Amino acid sequence: MQDYGIHDIGIYIPKARLVCAEHGDRLGMSAETLALRTGFDRLARKSPSEDTSDMACRAIMALIDSSNLTPEDVDCLVVVTQNPDGYGVPQVSALVHGKLNWPESIAAFDLSLGCSGYVYALSVIRGFMASNGHRHGVLVTADPYSKIVDVDDRGTAMIFGDAAAATLVSTVGPWRIGQTDFGTSGAGASHIHVNSQRMLRMNGGAVARYCIRTVPASVMRALAKNRVAMDDLDHILLHQGSRYIVESIGAELGATDKTFFMAGSVGNTSSSSIPLALKQLISSHPDARTIALSSFGVGLSWATTVIERSRDGGSPLRPTGL
Amino acid sequence: MQDYGIHDIGIYIPKARLVCAEHGDRLGMSAETLALRTGFDRLARKSPSEDTSDMACRAIMALIDSSNLTPEDVDCLVVVTQNPDGYGVPQVSALVHGKLNWPESIAAFDLSLGCSGYVYALSVIRGFMASNGHRHGVLVTADPYSKIVDVDDRGTAMIFGDAAAATLVSTVGPWRIGQTDFGTSGAGASHIHVNSQRMLRMNGGAVARYCIRTVPASVMRALAKNRVAMDDLDHILLHQGSRYIVESIGAELGATDKTFFMAGSVGNTSSSSIPLALKQLISSHPDARTIALSSFGVGLSWATTVIERSRDGGSPLRPTGL
Repeated sequence: MQDYGIHDIGIYIPKARLVCAEHGDRLGMSAETLALRTGFDRLARKSPSEDTSDMACRAIMALIDSSNLTPEDVDCLVVVTQNPDGYGVPQVSALVHGKLNWPESIAAFDLSLGCSGYVYALSVIRGFMASNGHRHGVLVTADPYSKIVDVDDRGTAMIFGDAAAATLVSTVGPWRIGQTDFGTSGAGASHIHVNSQRMLRMNGGAVARYCIRTVPASVMRALAKNRVAMDDLDHILLHQGSRYIVESIGAELGATDKTFFMAGSVGNTSSSSIPLALKQLISSHPDARTIALSSFGVGLSWATTVIERSRDGGSPLRPTGL
Repeated sequence: MQDYGIHDIGIYIPKARLVCAEHGDRLGMSAETLALRTGFDRLARKSPSEDTSDMACRAIMALIDSSNLTPEDVDCLVVVTQNPDGYGVPQVSALVHGKLNWPESIAAFDLSLGCSGYVYALSVIRGFMASNGHRHGVLVTADPYSKIVDVDDRGTAMIFGDAAAATLVSTVGPWRIGQTDFGTSGAGASHIHVNSQRMLRMNGGAVARYCIRTVPASVMRALAKNRVAMDDLDHILLHQGSRYIVESIGAELGATDKTFFMAGSVGNTSSSSIPLALKQLISSHPDARTIALSSFGVGLSWATTVIERSRDGGSPLRPTGL
């Protein structure tokens, strides 16, 4: 099968921030809880007039700026979201397609997954592109949880941030996408749900316990599938659900030196957390060659893969890219 | 790349029907309009207590009954819907996974597309399965529009029916899935949308004109991609949007003998219309070998492919299958 890799990532993070410390007293959350459990100081907030498709377009514009991608290059557009514009009809990918005035020949669809969405979507778009002989695919994650967060719910109000990422996947992208380990536990579907008032509810303790029990094994299976040893990994990039979850999974894996909590100034951005952190990690660690990506959340659902920078030189990336 | 085919289809159509003739006067729609334009006599209606995930489970149970599939066989589950349970968090595929108590190793996600969803999803699941070495995938379409139809809106009240289908895609499925032609026109995104009251609104005239202009060319491109001549096609199975759309596209293609409007007693069931009709068509035409499938709608979005019954004999299907 044709091989695909991550070619570049465009990021959009709204400028506005909700400062968590200003809400701790109101929600009965101590500074220690905010610092050590959730780990988020500030949460990025889109403006009320900005919709999911607008955030997606801004991430794509950033990608176009850094990669010189042209609309005529694009074979397919996949948008991962569970917070679409309006009530999700039409799908966000069609709205983005219209706003960017892209060619009719582009295949476009939305994937509905939460925090596990990015690693799932890398596998979905890679398979879709191979099946259709595509060269360039754009994978957007845009899931602004501020739309559904109840500002008075201490279980969720200090966690989620708004951001979007647009990942260019191509035949020449240097970060080759490996085999993926997937899993689903529908038995835990109610642990993260939107209620009849369209408000998010989360049993944070149950979710954390489940992820800490499940994700390390998924990482080990993904390593085995890709014939990569733990020692060969430069980093393990975990979905930035909270500082506690990231650090606990790192400890379970005996790999706290490879795991990072990097989302303190933005929040848990759902399916965008991995591409945001990946872009940052690679630019701060230019020698990294092998990275595990593990995403988990709503469903419950998880997916882990390994990306490896191709060793054949001739990277097609421009200096502004990854 | 590993080849995949449609192996079997399980169907769920709720028993209750809305009888269109009983509502014609109220909506100012003549018997002639109902018979010749929309073409729907009756619209299937789920019970109020039945949710999208319940319909999906019933279609899967029908598939299991006819194909002897066991949960341990299933590698992945894809649910196509734009009318999920609640507000779509968690995704329907996770709810179905939980209700059926399926194994944790199953990969599961939702695809958000409307009437174009089935042909898109055949390509998505085929690529995903190939990319992951899967043998058996279950593709569910379940999009009960009765949730969002305004019963007083003459543009949509007499069109949509509720149904679900579960398609087993496998390495040995006899109906091999060919190459697909895709397209998107986000410029027409507003023609089918759900408004701020969560009610469906459709500019039926604009949608019909667009489809009649666009879909025939998509069919011709799909034939070319699969090196199939129009004369080689036994049938062209079009999304059952309305009698007028189906017959007009058939006429544009000069192929009214190959196109059928078959949904008069059920309604436009969105992404389920093609699998429902396909199951019926194959059982009434057992000699059919080559069928074009073309789906189109919300987005606007369309996809056309060709399925061909493999000629190598040894069909793995049981007599109760397709």
